[in-house]
Amino acid sequence: MNDVLYPFSRSARNLKGSAVRELLRDALKPGVISLAGGLPQARLFDVSGLRAAVDAVFDGNARTALQYGATEGQEALQLAISALIQKRGLNVHPSTVLVTTGSQQGLDLIARAFVDEGDTVALQVPTYLAAVQAFDLRGARYSRLQGDSGARLAYVVTNFANPTGECMSIEDRQALLRWAVAERVFVLEDDPYGELRFSGAARPSLWELARSIPGAEPWCGYASSLSKIVAPGLRIGWLILPEAVRDTVARIKQATDLHTSSFAQEIAARYLESSELEMRLIVARHTYAAQCEALMSAIRETFGNELQFEVPGGGMFLWCRFTEPVDTGALLPLARDHGMIFVPGSVFSPGGGGDTATLRLSFSAGSPEELSEGVRRLRRAHLQYLKKPAAETPRFAAASLSTPR
Amino acid sequence: MNDVLYPFSRSARNLKGSAVRELLRDALKPGVISLAGGLPQARLFDVSGLRAAVDAVFDGNARTALQYGATEGQEALQLAISALIQKRGLNVHPSTVLVTTGSQQGLDLIARAFVDEGDTVALQVPTYLAAVQAFDLRGARYSRLQGDSGARLAYVVTNFANPTGECMSIEDRQALLRWAVAERVFVLEDDPYGELRFSGAARPSLWELARSIPGAEPWCGYASSLSKIVAPGLRIGWLILPEAVRDTVARIKQATDLHTSSFAQEIAARYLESSELEMRLIVARHTYAAQCEALMSAIRETFGNELQFEVPGGGMFLWCRFTEPVDTGALLPLARDHGMIFVPGSVFSPGGGGDTATLRLSFSAGSPEELSEGVRRLRRAHLQYLKKPAAETPRFAAASLSTPR
Repeated sequence: MNDVLYPFSRSARNLKGSAVRELLRDALKPGVISLAGGLPQARLFDVSGLRAAVDAVFDGNARTALQYGATEGQEALQLAISALIQKRGLNVHPSTVLVTTGSQQGLDLIARAFVDEGDTVALQVPTYLAAVQAFDLRGARYSRLQGDSGARLAYVVTNFANPTGECMSIEDRQALLRWAVAERVFVLEDDPYGELRFSGAARPSLWELARSIPGAEPWCGYASSLSKIVAPGLRIGWLILPEAVRDTVARIKQATDLHTSSFAQEIAARYLESSELEMRLIVARHTYAAQCEALMSAIRETFGNELQFEVPGGGMFLWCRFTEPVDTGALLPLARDHGMIFVPGSVFSPGGGGDTATLRLSFSAGSPEELSEGVRRLRRAHLQYLKKPAAETPRFAAASLSTPR
Repeated sequence: MNDVLYPFSRSARNLKGSAVRELLRDALKPGVISLAGGLPQARLFDVSGLRAAVDAVFDGNARTALQYGATEGQEALQLAISALIQKRGLNVHPSTVLVTTGSQQGLDLIARAFVDEGDTVALQVPTYLAAVQAFDLRGARYSRLQGDSGARLAYVVTNFANPTGECMSIEDRQALLRWAVAERVFVLEDDPYGELRFSGAARPSLWELARSIPGAEPWCGYASSLSKIVAPGLRIGWLILPEAVRDTVARIKQATDLHTSSFAQEIAARYLESSELEMRLIVARHTYAAQCEALMSAIRETFGNELQFEVPGGGMFLWCRFTEPVDTGALLPLARDHGMIFVPGSVFSPGGGGDTATLRLSFSAGSPEELSEGVRRLRRAHLQYLKKPAAETPRFAAASLSTPR
């Protein structure tokens, strides 16, 4: 059967598997410590709170939750999400909220709304890998934010970006919006991590800033999800968009999956209504701050000055760079043999040419002890790497590591 | 904001809202009897059985259900679905099952895998409207099954098709497969209604028949879902595909929504494992048979020979045709004024040119009493229609009724 040459579409032929996907598979093996995937800490899931939310759905109108629903989302969840993001400075009518199957679907829908084959998407480099996958499916090309003119869409993670952990300054946000107006480029702000801030003050969203920049309001949208703050298994995300964009995106969504699980939506609505989340977020911020601190301490103790990083103010990721020449793509198979995995930094550059001495370590899923042990294993792999001549080091297969671009 | 001309993609510009969507909105108004949407009968939802399934998830490893999962699906659900479809004659290894966010996502993924702009999709005419929406998003053109050569994909609902209620003969299924092999066209068999048979014997799937037709196995796939037999609100569907197609489609799915809700998947797995479904399906078949009979009796009594139909052997739809010239698109607004809605038959012909005297009546959602009352209201609208000169009858706005093609 595999010998059959199927007449696949151009986008299908261009798409390859992602590094993170292969790595996540590796991470499932017992004994391997994964600092690769951006999985939330499972101990933080509010199992009893969610169980109470499910009970509330069954005690209420369960048959409505089990029936087909509106493409835009269940009204109760639209209301709960609008209340949640009001605390983040976004004032929108509940009907503005377009519920998506995780924020990944939001990225895919926006790509389908704006990008034709060969069109340019402007992004931060390095950037979020799964966003690039969604754009690759459209046959996109890439440029840097505020770089070449002619981009059809811009994509930006403003708070604690994946993979760099960086938080955009207010000035940069304003400059981005002014560029969007001048170039007539729609900017999608992706904000999965904004609530996971453990130092510094929150910065306003593009949506909020656009109100004070002439002509900017029609040119930006906001995507977020419950995946990093409640539980990814619910697959609940949302888009906040100007009206004409929202109508177009909703029509595309209807053709894509009719609507996001109304059952999961009603559970999420009951949970958000219960006000459990605010207390839970305080715990989550402390937990991630402690895990981040444990990871940074372990690196300082184990690597000294050989592995550097920027101290993040929130999120899930530590972006690291070896000070001496180290090809992290070649280091990965050694690390795996030593029982830990990470993501080589170069895979986050969709155009290629990323810094091969960089790597992304996630501190979200492991306990402080696991993170320290992961760093010790990375160090053993690193020492082995330094002993070997570069030519003898088997580089992790490019096909499974790199995105198509 | 609406005055901004966004640089939308070609596929976005081509897509319009669907008739069914507008009609479903109308159906939400109190007092209107909808024979339009294909909603399952909410009284059939096994609320207590699903509640027990949720309890089983929470009593088991809830944190796994709440975490990110594999793109292909949760292993427990893959196993449960392979057992379910084995009863339908499909023998596949559980890992062959690709879980989708409802079968609608399955159609969208297959369209993305096989169809580029301008490519031809071969289909039954009339055909399922939401499938056409997914193909429209790819910029597809349409031909009839086994019609012109050069199609890239064929789409067929084999059992109790939407809207006609027809069940393909075994001979036609075999001929379709032989055509697929000769033309090298991948055929997706969509089977949401096969379990809802209330007369006659089940017919083998294309997947099953392909085993005895030389070269046919790589050229067909199977889509189905729990929406019509358990509950649509879960958004659980699946695809069964040859290996190379499955790998490609899984990669596309990853870029689309990472994975279908692992929480909903684990609930569905516990439910299918509980063996409640078999008993429930017996009840569902009896219920739909009775509702279908009530609808047919009401039509015979109310319309005599003026409205004809084929007696369906299962499913949810009755495909009707006025024997005298009646434009059902013009009849619809009158029917709505009389408190009932249906779907005019011409909208199911993606190339246009459908029979304007046809209409689709759904017997799935209403009680026998509601169905009879719906028919009486339709008759009052019909009598009003016959009294008015055609020119004075306000035709339902074409923009909201017709698909782009």
